[in-house]
Amino acid sequence: MRGAKQPNIVFVFSDQQRYSALGANGNDVIQTPVIDAMAAQGMVCDNMFSNHPLCSPYRAILLTGRYGWQNLVIDNEYRPRRDIPTLPGTLRDHGYGTAHIGTWHLGKGPYGEDNRYGLDYLAALEGGSGYFNRSYYENNRGPTIYDGWGPTVETDLAVGFIERHMDTRPDDPFAVFVSWRPPHWPYEQYPDEHNLYNPVDMDVAGNVPDEMKAFAHQEIADYYGCCTGLDAEMGRLLQALERLRVSDNTIVVYTSDHGDHLSSHGYGKPSSHWMPESMRASKATPYEESCHVPFVVRWPGVIEAATRTDAFFGAIDIVPTLLGACGVPLPAGLQGRDISSVWRGDDAPADTDSTPGGADSVYLQNMAHGWPNRDGWVGRWRGVRTERWTYARWYANERRPWLFDRREDPLEMVNLADSTEARPALQELEERLHRWMEGTRDPFEYGRRGPRGFLELGQEFAEPDKYPGWGVA
Amino acid sequence: MRGAKQPNIVFVFSDQQRYSALGANGNDVIQTPVIDAMAAQGMVCDNMFSNHPLCSPYRAILLTGRYGWQNLVIDNEYRPRRDIPTLPGTLRDHGYGTAHIGTWHLGKGPYGEDNRYGLDYLAALEGGSGYFNRSYYENNRGPTIYDGWGPTVETDLAVGFIERHMDTRPDDPFAVFVSWRPPHWPYEQYPDEHNLYNPVDMDVAGNVPDEMKAFAHQEIADYYGCCTGLDAEMGRLLQALERLRVSDNTIVVYTSDHGDHLSSHGYGKPSSHWMPESMRASKATPYEESCHVPFVVRWPGVIEAATRTDAFFGAIDIVPTLLGACGVPLPAGLQGRDISSVWRGDDAPADTDSTPGGADSVYLQNMAHGWPNRDGWVGRWRGVRTERWTYARWYANERRPWLFDRREDPLEMVNLADSTEARPALQELEERLHRWMEGTRDPFEYGRRGPRGFLELGQEFAEPDKYPGWGVA
Repeated sequence: MRGAKQPNIVFVFSDQQRYSALGANGNDVIQTPVIDAMAAQGMVCDNMFSNHPLCSPYRAILLTGRYGWQNLVIDNEYRPRRDIPTLPGTLRDHGYGTAHIGTWHLGKGPYGEDNRYGLDYLAALEGGSGYFNRSYYENNRGPTIYDGWGPTVETDLAVGFIERHMDTRPDDPFAVFVSWRPPHWPYEQYPDEHNLYNPVDMDVAGNVPDEMKAFAHQEIADYYGCCTGLDAEMGRLLQALERLRVSDNTIVVYTSDHGDHLSSHGYGKPSSHWMPESMRASKATPYEESCHVPFVVRWPGVIEAATRTDAFFGAIDIVPTLLGACGVPLPAGLQGRDISSVWRGDDAPADTDSTPGGADSVYLQNMAHGWPNRDGWVGRWRGVRTERWTYARWYANERRPWLFDRREDPLEMVNLADSTEARPALQELEERLHRWMEGTRDPFEYGRRGPRGFLELGQEFAEPDKYPGWGVA
Repeated sequence: MRGAKQPNIVFVFSDQQRYSALGANGNDVIQTPVIDAMAAQGMVCDNMFSNHPLCSPYRAILLTGRYGWQNLVIDNEYRPRRDIPTLPGTLRDHGYGTAHIGTWHLGKGPYGEDNRYGLDYLAALEGGSGYFNRSYYENNRGPTIYDGWGPTVETDLAVGFIERHMDTRPDDPFAVFVSWRPPHWPYEQYPDEHNLYNPVDMDVAGNVPDEMKAFAHQEIADYYGCCTGLDAEMGRLLQALERLRVSDNTIVVYTSDHGDHLSSHGYGKPSSHWMPESMRASKATPYEESCHVPFVVRWPGVIEAATRTDAFFGAIDIVPTLLGACGVPLPAGLQGRDISSVWRGDDAPADTDSTPGGADSVYLQNMAHGWPNRDGWVGRWRGVRTERWTYARWYANERRPWLFDRREDPLEMVNLADSTEARPALQELEERLHRWMEGTRDPFEYGRRGPRGFLELGQEFAEPDKYPGWGVA
């Protein structure tokens, strides 16, 4: 890459947008024309999964390229280790101007240099509720209230960063991470102009129980309204890149941190107190709706237009892939694979000892209860997903294993874990799972556990005074 | 009573109609004009509860006046002991012609004399689904298909029995039990003419979770349609009594075997496989919606018109009360109270050693899993309900106890079992519960248990070959 200016990165991710909630992924109900057009100019990665389908754990994986037992964000509300390389830090070390705008959820403001993990500029959404007129820390400053819809504000802040960067460091590349909070509930928090969906017309899947179908129709209508609103913001962002004449040398990604059940399989929300705790999740499960996320990447001149890949690709692979795409040497300790070769039209890399099965599966997990002061949730599990199968098992066997044959049962309705016919598949998947555990040095089976069964790894709360009496594990 | 012809009995009970599903009980959405008028001519018993809020156990209590550990119907699909007195048998011994028409659920046809528990005529709804064009055993005959809506057919069969009885035994009283299967699901099985309810107008309670509210609106609309259909059949039945000139000397009762959650507290149906088994019940819980049933009784010249009583009254009290009302001596072994004095305008009887607390509470229970071949359900519990409190606890403490203060929390949303403030109430209710256990010789705490925790009492399946391999306990 010597002599050529390295590509910029604009990495946009929404919160809780499932794979199916995108026109480019075959959904003909939702309207996402901008991202669909971006897909037509670039590549759709159809097998992108959130390895730990929960807010902070995904973000820590994206920041560090390591799983939670390495980065120490085992759950929401923990903070990443500060003694390991990060994606923005590595990019900065190689000449990039770095920024993150929007939801952060990996610390507490104000954000001084030692609290920013290599980011030159961190505009972090601060506490509060709803998605309008929210406040942000900007590094050490703030929090400052910005009027308007959060994603609109954040798009403006991102464009502002790029403009400042190009003014002051015109010869250096930039890497901007934009993290929009919608379509995470409250679903109705989006501008009226995107209220386009009639609940009765929504595509409610057969794995939504009859009792919740009408509710799901309404929720999905608003959820899609949020997604369409984000699509419009994506349009503003891409127009700014065009206006600033950087589109051609910028890798633009659109993805999400995890999916959303939206009542599939009868899962509710943490506030659904009538449900058993194990069902009060809309994510963090091994199900399709929870783990599978959109991933669209555009890189003019490198990625062939209108292509798709079914190469397996997890959140854990994003750091090495982006660094690899930009020609930045990979720091030691990354736990994923550089699949930028796929973006360039070549084969995916072969498995390594530390990514055993990465070529045809992803390793999935949930490490704790979603929030530190919760007594129970979906449980602590490890799983593996292949083109055909979904397999997961729980800590201390607190639930029976799950085995779904998505070829016969795409909606994951029939658990085959106890079936005689599926025993060979189960054994093969259990062996896969074990290879993943060993290759990633996952202490799931042997690690020291706290009173609630969380791994005790030396993790620290992002806000130590927020959960008095709960310890950290 | 010597010299006076004893009163006839027409005891009508629907299946799964909760207390609130009746105009006379303050519901201004449902239309039940006939039963409301009957209430205006008679008495509403506002504190009638199904002691064991499940189909067969209620029916066995109504048949024998004993709890399940005495009559051996611990659950659906078991048959009552044949060596104890029954309500129809006792009435027959004292000159009554006796009949039961409709749902029976306490045996298997054909029904010979030794299989009828003292009934001269048993027209028992036979297997099948839906509520139209069903077949019936009539004693040893059948099954015969009768076209039409089940309750209409059964009303005709009941009137036919009364006409035959009056033709052949004009000087003898009759006792007819009519058991209509609606409004038990499938809720949409009722004549179109009663499809009167717009789902959006239904009275969905605050204890129905948001996720299920729209579903509940639809279900309740059909449920009310069923109830209104039954009300019309009640009108036909009362008109027949009028035509036959027996209204004045007939005790007419309208009640139900138990209630229906209709999504309250998030409970579903056995077919709601997405739910944990403990929630797949729409009854058999200690909740208001499950236990509390309508009870309207009309007895011209004896019961004062347009009266209500809040005397506590359980299904267990129906046998002694009806026998007491008719001047028939009570057989030994009954476990309830004769509260016919209340019908006559006098005080309720005092407590006895075997009904300790009956004057101001009812004893509630669920003994097994609803269906013999089910591995789990709402659990096996005992409870007590007073004017203010609902209290229940489970076998082997498989769930934490429930304590609801219905004065502060009429929808039973806040379990106070762990609250310090409610500890005196909990202790008092636990003492009450224990008095009930001791007074009724309930083996809940000391009885021998089978592998699924059911009491082993020598019970027998109604259809022994229906559940091979499941034993009986």
